[in-house]
Amino acid sequence: MKLKKPYIISVYALVRNEKGEYLLLRRSENSRTNPGKWDLPGGKVDRGETLKEAVAREVQEETGISVNPGGIAGEVTFELPAKKVIAIVYDGGFNVIDVQLSYEHVEYAWVALEEIVKMEALPAYFRNFFKEHALESL
Amino acid sequence: MKLKKPYIISVYALVRNEKGEYLLLRRSENSRTNPGKWDLPGGKVDRGETLKEAVAREVQEETGISVNPGGIAGEVTFELPAKKVIAIVYDGGFNVIDVQLSYEHVEYAWVALEEIVKMEALPAYFRNFFKEHALESL
Repeated sequence: MKLKKPYIISVYALVRNEKGEYLLLRRSENSRTNPGKWDLPGGKVDRGETLKEAVAREVQEETGISVNPGGIAGEVTFELPAKKVIAIVYDGGFNVIDVQLSYEHVEYAWVALEEIVKMEALPAYFRNFFKEHALESL
Repeated sequence: MKLKKPYIISVYALVRNEKGEYLLLRRSENSRTNPGKWDLPGGKVDRGETLKEAVAREVQEETGISVNPGGIAGEVTFELPAKKVIAIVYDGGFNVIDVQLSYEHVEYAWVALEEIVKMEALPAYFRNFFKEHALESL
């Protein structure tokens, strides 16, 4: 079995505010992948972690927010230059506290679903995820 | 956010013999899902388990084989009547010991890739996975 690129598993969270807007983070210009692009909070699953542990840790590290991940909202797969990513997106629930960014991101925003699906600076795989999500919520 | 069906995560293993054939299991006629169909060894991830722990446990339970899951070979998503499944397929490595089935399955077989992609009694989502897998291996 020859695999052209290794797969990794990543986890992301949909965190909403009281208006139902979603939390997006903008990646640093120094990021190896998608520099300057918008992103969901989340990242790679570490060895020995459950998916829920990983999403709670990543959201905490990147935003200072403690989430208690609920159900799975969906999945997204995409290719980066060196790997293929299977991304599991969790419902991260509601949040009302201030966001504290890490070095990985330079900006955050709470964005309504109808705006997200038009954001050119959000990678297409996430935009498509929100489009399907919007259709499912009808 | 209204979700029509909950998502669950399942894990499966590609276990090969010395000829490079893959281990498939045939589900009991009493199975709630896909009765009598062929299947990969694997199943649902339990709460608190890592994906690799889950795949090792499921393969052990269903076949008696101890696998040390390697890299991820790919992913498959499919819908069952009551849920959507995100299935992560691991490379389960080579095996030479006898298979010991559990109550869940009634038969096993080692099947070459060129036969698997034609098996009508293997759900289409797995057949398609093997087709892509075959293309990737070229």
